[in-house]
Amino acid sequence: MPVAYEKLTAKGRATRERIVAAASELMLQRGVARTTIEDIQEAATISTSQMYHYFADKKDLVSAVIDYQTDQVLSFQHLGLDRIESIDDLRRWRDVMVDAVHGRNGLGGCPLGSMASELSDCDPVARARLARSFAQWENVIRDGLVAIATRGELAAGTDIDGIALAMLAALQGGLLLSQVRRDAAPLAAAVDTMIEHLSRLGMR
Amino acid sequence: MPVAYEKLTAKGRATRERIVAAASELMLQRGVARTTIEDIQEAATISTSQMYHYFADKKDLVSAVIDYQTDQVLSFQHLGLDRIESIDDLRRWRDVMVDAVHGRNGLGGCPLGSMASELSDCDPVARARLARSFAQWENVIRDGLVAIATRGELAAGTDIDGIALAMLAALQGGLLLSQVRRDAAPLAAAVDTMIEHLSRLGMR
Repeated sequence: MPVAYEKLTAKGRATRERIVAAASELMLQRGVARTTIEDIQEAATISTSQMYHYFADKKDLVSAVIDYQTDQVLSFQHLGLDRIESIDDLRRWRDVMVDAVHGRNGLGGCPLGSMASELSDCDPVARARLARSFAQWENVIRDGLVAIATRGELAAGTDIDGIALAMLAALQGGLLLSQVRRDAAPLAAAVDTMIEHLSRLGMR
Repeated sequence: MPVAYEKLTAKGRATRERIVAAASELMLQRGVARTTIEDIQEAATISTSQMYHYFADKKDLVSAVIDYQTDQVLSFQHLGLDRIESIDDLRRWRDVMVDAVHGRNGLGGCPLGSMASELSDCDPVARARLARSFAQWENVIRDGLVAIATRGELAAGTDIDGIALAMLAALQGGLLLSQVRRDAAPLAAAVDTMIEHLSRLGMR
């Protein structure tokens, strides 16, 4: 049994974090199936006994990686979405995302989307965890849309829940197609169409 | 060197097709990395020498699987999209897709999207092949939108290319989120929002 997180010393927590960061990077690059515990040990320069001090098995590591990637993605999303009050703010958030994807030629897609695609049908624990992560992301988007509606930029009766879910789908599909094409155009087209739709919903 | 497809007898082509169908099913279930040549041989009940009679290596099989899945997906898409002339037709196409995904609880996601997510960053040949498949799919959608515009249901100046790409992204993101959630709602929300957008674009 690995040591519970709460019982780890500050140094122990730092080592655990180093392992998770190394595992995340490898799993994002190669996928979960192609990443072995040995690869991660080597990348994090830790011994086998250290590894099992922190994690019971690969599935345990995968859960930690999902949590880590969720934090990374959501803090990036919060950065852009927390201050959203208008459709113009949404356009700025779009620019930040499209620029980021353009800067890496679409490589990597979405870390959560990639894990979801690989694990949803074969790992029920990972699937449930990823579903929760996407629900959190959807909530962040919904909060932004509610702020826009509160400001009066959306017509009364707009289906904010449906549009929040559709926006998350647009992001996921856009990121995946940008990864395949090595080009930010699909992400831009997907999000632009959603924003255009929202801005028309606001016209009286 | 495997035998060129053109030189295969009818029986040889049938065997090759059986191998590709078995490989497609396994790769869709488990992912490419988790599927070995031996698994495929067993599933298709063929010998090692037969396998190498048809395919040089696993990468060669992956290419054949991408072509096979592209044919499957596009013939399903053509079925719904070829007769599209109006936004109402688009709604019927949406129902067929959402029903199909609902019927399998989202399982499987999109075969092309799953391969794209797994292979884009680590297999340049597969990536290029998948990019071509998605371009074909995008064209099928664009043709449907052009037919709708020709009928006069879209305002002049509508960015049909951008919307076709956004619709493909909506499908991909919707299918992925439906796979994670085991629920067709994300696909429905994504496509409904796109169709709603199109129908508003047609209002004068």
